[in-house]
Amino acid sequence: MKINSETEKIFKTHDRGSIEIVSRAQIKEIIDLRRVYTPGVALVCEEIKDNPQSAWEWTGICDRIAIATNGTAVLGFGDIGVKASLPVMEGKASILAEFVGISGFPILIDTKDPDAFVDVMLKIAPSFGAIQLEDVAAPACFEIEEKLKAKLDIPVFHDDQHGTATVVLAATMSAMKKTGKKPQDCSALVLGAGAASSAVSQILLGFGISDIVIYDSKGPLYRGRTENMNRYKQHLAEITNKKNQNCSFAEAFAGKDIFIGLSRPNMVSKDMILKMNKNPIVFPLSNPVGEISKEEAIQAGASIAADGRDINNALAYPGIFRGALDARATDINLEMKLAAAKALADSAPDNELLPDMLDKNIHKKVAQAVVKAWQNS
Amino acid sequence: MKINSETEKIFKTHDRGSIEIVSRAQIKEIIDLRRVYTPGVALVCEEIKDNPQSAWEWTGICDRIAIATNGTAVLGFGDIGVKASLPVMEGKASILAEFVGISGFPILIDTKDPDAFVDVMLKIAPSFGAIQLEDVAAPACFEIEEKLKAKLDIPVFHDDQHGTATVVLAATMSAMKKTGKKPQDCSALVLGAGAASSAVSQILLGFGISDIVIYDSKGPLYRGRTENMNRYKQHLAEITNKKNQNCSFAEAFAGKDIFIGLSRPNMVSKDMILKMNKNPIVFPLSNPVGEISKEEAIQAGASIAADGRDINNALAYPGIFRGALDARATDINLEMKLAAAKALADSAPDNELLPDMLDKNIHKKVAQAVVKAWQNS
Repeated sequence: MKINSETEKIFKTHDRGSIEIVSRAQIKEIIDLRRVYTPGVALVCEEIKDNPQSAWEWTGICDRIAIATNGTAVLGFGDIGVKASLPVMEGKASILAEFVGISGFPILIDTKDPDAFVDVMLKIAPSFGAIQLEDVAAPACFEIEEKLKAKLDIPVFHDDQHGTATVVLAATMSAMKKTGKKPQDCSALVLGAGAASSAVSQILLGFGISDIVIYDSKGPLYRGRTENMNRYKQHLAEITNKKNQNCSFAEAFAGKDIFIGLSRPNMVSKDMILKMNKNPIVFPLSNPVGEISKEEAIQAGASIAADGRDINNALAYPGIFRGALDARATDINLEMKLAAAKALADSAPDNELLPDMLDKNIHKKVAQAVVKAWQNS
Repeated sequence: MKINSETEKIFKTHDRGSIEIVSRAQIKEIIDLRRVYTPGVALVCEEIKDNPQSAWEWTGICDRIAIATNGTAVLGFGDIGVKASLPVMEGKASILAEFVGISGFPILIDTKDPDAFVDVMLKIAPSFGAIQLEDVAAPACFEIEEKLKAKLDIPVFHDDQHGTATVVLAATMSAMKKTGKKPQDCSALVLGAGAASSAVSQILLGFGISDIVIYDSKGPLYRGRTENMNRYKQHLAEITNKKNQNCSFAEAFAGKDIFIGLSRPNMVSKDMILKMNKNPIVFPLSNPVGEISKEEAIQAGASIAADGRDINNALAYPGIFRGALDARATDINLEMKLAAAKALADSAPDNELLPDMLDKNIHKKVAQAVVKAWQNS
């Protein structure tokens, strides 16, 4: 471990964990104990037994979500195991607590079997008002989310997919305004075919982007490809790549208006950007270093460039969960994600793609938009 | 729901839950976010990946326990389901947070199958520094605890058993001092053969009480009994009831020095107490109303009488878990429970059996005794 003063401050932030549980009820006198615990608590239990919905009023599930992971796709590290992923989950929980007053509790599930993961979450689901899936590798993450959504009546939201997709969409909406481009005239190139790419591609198509071509390490997703496919990539191959093109990655930049990188650092050169349509929009989002630096992208003619620091899903998930819990929604659907993206784009200052994520009012606006979208859907 | 002002205060205490998760790290500026979350948190993840034990320093597991239940033995209600048990689990968590700074998180596990319960806890165990089992009915609770203890290297402690046993032992130690009785000269009668009775009987025998006879709704546990038995009751029948007596419950009071009720209200009459040895010790612990009132027990000649309000396991489990976590113990063993009981008995004021549970110093003393016992064992 390299020691410098910033490193020390980072470790200090995580010393004994970045979150803790506190009692809302002070226990100073015996009467306090007899209210929060026995015998008083018995009245509350009886009320919930007779009227299960009242658990939303008389317990903390109205503010409580699981942050559930199996540690298989953590930051840029990949599969580092559940224990080493815990600081990330606690960090997510700190953000939820600070920005929107949600109690996010890290649930580390020590299994790579999607069905075992699903089984654990189904059994402990009554503990929560919603479930945030986090840092679970594709394709297991798709299967886990699908099965949990089908079986539970509380929202299940894989943040690496939908949080990212929501913020990328918001940034794209802003970029359209600034460049005067229209979604139906734009083609996009996406690098990476994991959880985030899948959700980003689908939400951009839903927004009206004309066509998207997705590349992974084996080349483009196209109809007829057999190497390194699964049913989720198969589905993407069917809804993207209109011309079913199968050229090299470098050649694929030609004719594209938008590039979105969701893969690894330094995969893109200035020459590639130079091949894009006029006034291209470049989002190299790999973390902590992008597929190309913003500076190089601009030098190569990008009209707009934003990286993973600008396009951060901490802008989306706090407000989305706050809204879903406040609405007592049973799902987080496409309409809610679109509403969140629109609220973010609408709140961006003139000279920015996105608003300031430290501004708590932004998260409140997102939450309100999400509540409204749920009620209308 | 009967409304009066005290009822309102109880519900107000549980409004939106009695606990919440807060961030220890303030997030005011972008640098705060970049320490608690990406990119800074990556350094912490790497450190734990390379040195898994350091998770005790750089995450919250040093202060974090599961409060796990399936809602099958909640207060006097029995099986009211997981959701209706949540206010009790939150109350336990409030006590842990207020008394000893432990983050106790309620895990509601929606299954009555002990193996399924065990499987869930094994998979999510990396999330915690210890596991408190709570309000799980016997005999499932024995099987669950046994299996989890065998497979996990963090402490597993069924509070209804061992928390209760620790406090009953502490009260018994004090009662011995006050009455001048010696454990090896005392016989005890225990009513109830559930989780608490099993643990209380075993710890009292470990303390040196000469003999114990346990009654359940079908009569005494004795060698040769076949009705309504299981392997846990079988074990109790083998280690108790030296004379293998099989008389009526009322007759069983004769020759006993200690009565401990862990069953249902109003099961014991003054006539029964009158049959006991001189200066009897009477602990009618059923909640919220005892097997006999303390007043009646005293009228019938009890030298010492204490009920469930006096003998409350909130005296034991906060300090026991604090000590176990501080010692990074892999188990909570008999020595630790005995040390906790002794610390409680030693801290009792002259005119009381037990110290004041609102005094945080008491919990600190228990924790210190538990740490020492772990280190010596």
